[in-house]
Amino acid sequence: MTFVSASITAIFSTKIDRDPKKAGSYGVGFTVDMGVEARASEKNGVFLNGERVSFPTVEHVLERLGGKGVDLRTRLPVSCGFGVSGASALATAVEISLQKGLNLPFFRLADIAHEAEVVNRTGLGDVVTQSFGGIVARVRPGSPSKSRVERFLSRAEVDFLVLGQMPTKEVLGDEVKRRSINQAGKKRLKEFLKKPSLENLFVQAKKFSLESGLADDEIVDVIEAVESRGGLASMVMLGRSVFALNGKGAFEEFGGDSFSARITGCSVRL
Amino acid sequence: MTFVSASITAIFSTKIDRDPKKAGSYGVGFTVDMGVEARASEKNGVFLNGERVSFPTVEHVLERLGGKGVDLRTRLPVSCGFGVSGASALATAVEISLQKGLNLPFFRLADIAHEAEVVNRTGLGDVVTQSFGGIVARVRPGSPSKSRVERFLSRAEVDFLVLGQMPTKEVLGDEVKRRSINQAGKKRLKEFLKKPSLENLFVQAKKFSLESGLADDEIVDVIEAVESRGGLASMVMLGRSVFALNGKGAFEEFGGDSFSARITGCSVRL
Repeated sequence: MTFVSASITAIFSTKIDRDPKKAGSYGVGFTVDMGVEARASEKNGVFLNGERVSFPTVEHVLERLGGKGVDLRTRLPVSCGFGVSGASALATAVEISLQKGLNLPFFRLADIAHEAEVVNRTGLGDVVTQSFGGIVARVRPGSPSKSRVERFLSRAEVDFLVLGQMPTKEVLGDEVKRRSINQAGKKRLKEFLKKPSLENLFVQAKKFSLESGLADDEIVDVIEAVESRGGLASMVMLGRSVFALNGKGAFEEFGGDSFSARITGCSVRL
Repeated sequence: MTFVSASITAIFSTKIDRDPKKAGSYGVGFTVDMGVEARASEKNGVFLNGERVSFPTVEHVLERLGGKGVDLRTRLPVSCGFGVSGASALATAVEISLQKGLNLPFFRLADIAHEAEVVNRTGLGDVVTQSFGGIVARVRPGSPSKSRVERFLSRAEVDFLVLGQMPTKEVLGDEVKRRSINQAGKKRLKEFLKKPSLENLFVQAKKFSLESGLADDEIVDVIEAVESRGGLASMVMLGRSVFALNGKGAFEEFGGDSFSARITGCSVRL
């Protein structure tokens, strides 16, 4: 079994390129001790929590490595900003390589997972964050082997409130939205790197969620409710979800599912 | 608590440089799920398994980061080739940075641990291997941030037999010995990278231990005993120790302590 962490993006700006190895994103994200477990399967295709599914990103990885099928297990919500597709792609790549004795370097596998995400438009930075682990600032975009990151370790527990899905393609397909996202993303990455503490990550991430126009009224209400109780919070990119330090009490006022997870520097485990 | 894995060097060649950031080694090593646990301490100095010790490599790290003291715990033998000093230095660096809220990037901490090893002549490559985790081929030497590696994941359990300590400084201080080590080390690294499987690691590592002149008669006897029972084995660099796949049965014929550990890609855990 191969486990890969969920990846939560706090700040980002997109880098579009025809070459999927060069496409990616700047930004800051972090990995937690919840994620996706993959087991190589004798049955053809992709199974998610026991059900056969259409999952083009993972199918791309299977095809590239000559894998037959994979069984994926996760308790995370899909399409809510937890990097489930990136974790699934990377876990599948590692699992198939081990099963088939391909002896491929880890970063070769990570690059294949990144390309699968870019080609299928399911993510631009999750696999990079997941390949390194911890709080990961992506200072040069691209596939894991081409990107450059600053990596920080932390012991914090983070609370999550999931309010719903967000249509990633629609948001990133809008030229005007993308411009304000990119402008805010670059500025907030720079401000985070000046003082790369966990607290400053929340401060800059919240500013990013407001300046980019991505946070809607309900998300802002949740963030403010956490802050009024002495916590820190921001929006999960891209999902209608909030991540917080000491957010549990405030979350109770709202609908949606909540859970907690610890930041981990070990995002790939066999 | 910060845990850092033991690091077993299978193949190496030295790169000496006045600048400790540029000094290091080429080679192949791997990390396992046994190692050193570090806890920041209110008492001054370095404590190893409860006893106050003189440990210049770790003291160097404490001084650089303004740490008072550290409590280290390990079940590994010291000076037998398990990278205990590197693991102690890196775990101390991470632990002190977290305790003091220094917010230093992980690779900055790893560089400090590497420099502490080089300056005190306790290691040239362990901290690089430990910073990445898994089976790590060091293809460009230097401190972790300056080095370049190829990293491979594996699920194997490895057996160890410890026959005694080896005087690292004496071995590496001998010009003639160092020349044959470096020549064999570069050749065997190249041969490993042609087919980076676990089996080939053992094949190339054994050739390295013979060609370099580092394996003595007893070590060769142990390796051959493992092979005659269908296993694979080579010498731990630099210690009078053997690592093996399926070595348990053969080890029983010899004196010395034995134990087993799994290769891990997660060599730093909080």
